[in-house]
Amino acid sequence: MRLVVVGGVAAGLSAASRARRMDKSLEIVVLEKGGRISYGACGLPYFIEGQVESAGQLTVMTPDVFERDRDIRIRLNAEVVAIQHSRREVVLAGGERMHYDQLVWGAGAVPQRWNDPRAFSFHTDADAERLQDFLQSGRRRTAAVVGGGYIGLELATALRARGLAVTVFEARSHLLHWEDVELTNALLKRLEECRIAVYFNRAVKSVEETGCDLAIIATGLKPNVAVPAEAGVELGRTGAIRTDDRTQTNLHGLYAAGDCAESRHLVTGRPVWVPLGPLANKMGRVAGANAAGHRETFAGVVGTSIVRVGGLGVAMTGLSQEQAKREGFVPARVRIEALNKPRYFRGRPIAVELIADRNSHRLIGGSVAGDEDVAGRINVIATAVSAGMKADDFAVLDLAYAPPFATVMDPLLIAGQQLVKLLH
Amino acid sequence: MRLVVVGGVAAGLSAASRARRMDKSLEIVVLEKGGRISYGACGLPYFIEGQVESAGQLTVMTPDVFERDRDIRIRLNAEVVAIQHSRREVVLAGGERMHYDQLVWGAGAVPQRWNDPRAFSFHTDADAERLQDFLQSGRRRTAAVVGGGYIGLELATALRARGLAVTVFEARSHLLHWEDVELTNALLKRLEECRIAVYFNRAVKSVEETGCDLAIIATGLKPNVAVPAEAGVELGRTGAIRTDDRTQTNLHGLYAAGDCAESRHLVTGRPVWVPLGPLANKMGRVAGANAAGHRETFAGVVGTSIVRVGGLGVAMTGLSQEQAKREGFVPARVRIEALNKPRYFRGRPIAVELIADRNSHRLIGGSVAGDEDVAGRINVIATAVSAGMKADDFAVLDLAYAPPFATVMDPLLIAGQQLVKLLH
Repeated sequence: MRLVVVGGVAAGLSAASRARRMDKSLEIVVLEKGGRISYGACGLPYFIEGQVESAGQLTVMTPDVFERDRDIRIRLNAEVVAIQHSRREVVLAGGERMHYDQLVWGAGAVPQRWNDPRAFSFHTDADAERLQDFLQSGRRRTAAVVGGGYIGLELATALRARGLAVTVFEARSHLLHWEDVELTNALLKRLEECRIAVYFNRAVKSVEETGCDLAIIATGLKPNVAVPAEAGVELGRTGAIRTDDRTQTNLHGLYAAGDCAESRHLVTGRPVWVPLGPLANKMGRVAGANAAGHRETFAGVVGTSIVRVGGLGVAMTGLSQEQAKREGFVPARVRIEALNKPRYFRGRPIAVELIADRNSHRLIGGSVAGDEDVAGRINVIATAVSAGMKADDFAVLDLAYAPPFATVMDPLLIAGQQLVKLLH
Repeated sequence: MRLVVVGGVAAGLSAASRARRMDKSLEIVVLEKGGRISYGACGLPYFIEGQVESAGQLTVMTPDVFERDRDIRIRLNAEVVAIQHSRREVVLAGGERMHYDQLVWGAGAVPQRWNDPRAFSFHTDADAERLQDFLQSGRRRTAAVVGGGYIGLELATALRARGLAVTVFEARSHLLHWEDVELTNALLKRLEECRIAVYFNRAVKSVEETGCDLAIIATGLKPNVAVPAEAGVELGRTGAIRTDDRTQTNLHGLYAAGDCAESRHLVTGRPVWVPLGPLANKMGRVAGANAAGHRETFAGVVGTSIVRVGGLGVAMTGLSQEQAKREGFVPARVRIEALNKPRYFRGRPIAVELIADRNSHRLIGGSVAGDEDVAGRINVIATAVSAGMKADDFAVLDLAYAPPFATVMDPLLIAGQQLVKLLH
């Protein structure tokens, strides 16, 4: 029995490793089209910023380790160009065919690329190294960042930290995917302090348009689905691969996990495409378990994300007010600002936004923005949203209090109480 | 209609303020036996440490503000010595009687006190000021702290920071109430680094025994229930006042909230005594609403607490393994240590303990210890425990990830996965 895994980063390696733990005798082969596996792609902006010395430093594990310790064969520079599922074969670039019994497609997503030596997509370690070389090979004064999502903002601050004048061009009227005026304004304020300019409603298509020495293309990410789609794998309405709760596609024995696949949103119950590392790891684990013959399910996600912009942490989870409306909820929303700690422990302002459904009173989303303790607080909201908790129960959560850590009434609870008032 | 509230700190003032918001016409009187209201008692150890300049700085609001802005009458130095509920009267020290229609008893807890000028209980602002005066009025070299609970540990580090040689005497064999060897050892290691000595199984009864210049009595806290008990108010098995889910006692129209009262443990469903500020505020709010004629309930607590010892944050929530056994659960327990952030963001070790019930697979408790991000993580566990979340769902929570904030697989999820393995 052979398990073939396509993709050697988060989802693929999680699947391969989990399958091995579940079945010692399975033959496992990972096919990676690039020249490196297991690198922390999310750390690449910090390589550009200078926090990480080399892209190689982000490599978590080398092929040797997989082969020696886990008996997982890794093939680098092995691109799968076709799947013939009826024959249980993948076809590699160059023509080689490889048989599989089970297949996990974990080939990630594909960034938009422009055919211009001054345009830089930012998706793989090779992308990061190419940008780094370009920055070091001449005097670069100005950079455009096309797209105000989290990768765009991370790179904007990284390039600014290196002394470039940075301008962000965003096609829509807000930053991140949250579509919230106050969150966008909080980010704009911080970006302004960093002297990063932002233009909205500017769908830039070329480096020339920007007038800058280089452009980062941080927009237009798409799931990598061409090969499986050609082989008859069904896509969902998001454009990513439709999977069931075991991560299996419509083709028996063919699983999909990570940035190429849909998962289920725990609030709406509907398919959602969330191309983020933690989800890729979790889905990969489930794919690996099922591919190894076990029965394991994955409930879904609430779409938690976080980004740091000039010291400001901005995080969100569940549905924003706008998303909630589109999904048919009648949202109630509050936003409060409070200190994260007592004044005598140098408390800093933190903003908490909560969104509940007026019909069920369930908490369905929220955001947190501040200089400290943002991750912990968004995770509390994510946990409550995942559990289907009602606003009334959220508002009286038994959260930890001691002066070095928090105020006696945590900002989360202050927001929760406001939300309860709004609902009753 | 007159509402009388006994106690002018957390529970009492929350009750009075909430009652006012709900009923503009109610006459509201707060009787406080001390000379000050609304002070953050939890901040007092940091006054001793020097973080807070004066105990007065911890006062959140003055009587003026209550009287002017909220039309709440505050009487200081007004000790209630008897309740005659059949006549709806309280009797003050001095003999004055005051009629009430509704009564909220929020008189807090009573510390153990020794009759020795070198022994210092640490409960009120007056206690803190007396200790401060003693420390400043002569050369004090050595201090004993009697009791290794969180107040004891906070004061031990505060006194050590002021240069005293500090020894903690604990009557039992562990620190805090968690009864866990590993948690106690983590604390001991940090206390040793601060050069604070700890003796276990030493039930000290006098300053002489300690051989120190002074002793802090941080043990033997009891709910302040003598007066209501005398008036026929029922106590629970914990010794605190039994209340229903509206915080009403067995006497109609007589409510109890805060450190004098029992609440309900959300895991066991049983009455529990948790003398902590956040609970006092929440119960006080519910007592105030009900006393003002509204119907509001309080579900209960999971007993979350946190303390900082020499830079180490230690937090716990729900039931410890030992507590779970005593409550009739069959606990499964894991403890892991992992980095809170990637190495290139100077990640620090953090320990996460999780406890689940083997029968229901519900998460019933946990602890977190580390130098950073402890509060946020214990709050995630507290939220999951409150929601009755199962270990399987906890292990795949959609927690926030970006390198400046966390690792791709959060320590909480690593622990969750271990727990799931143990359960299956």
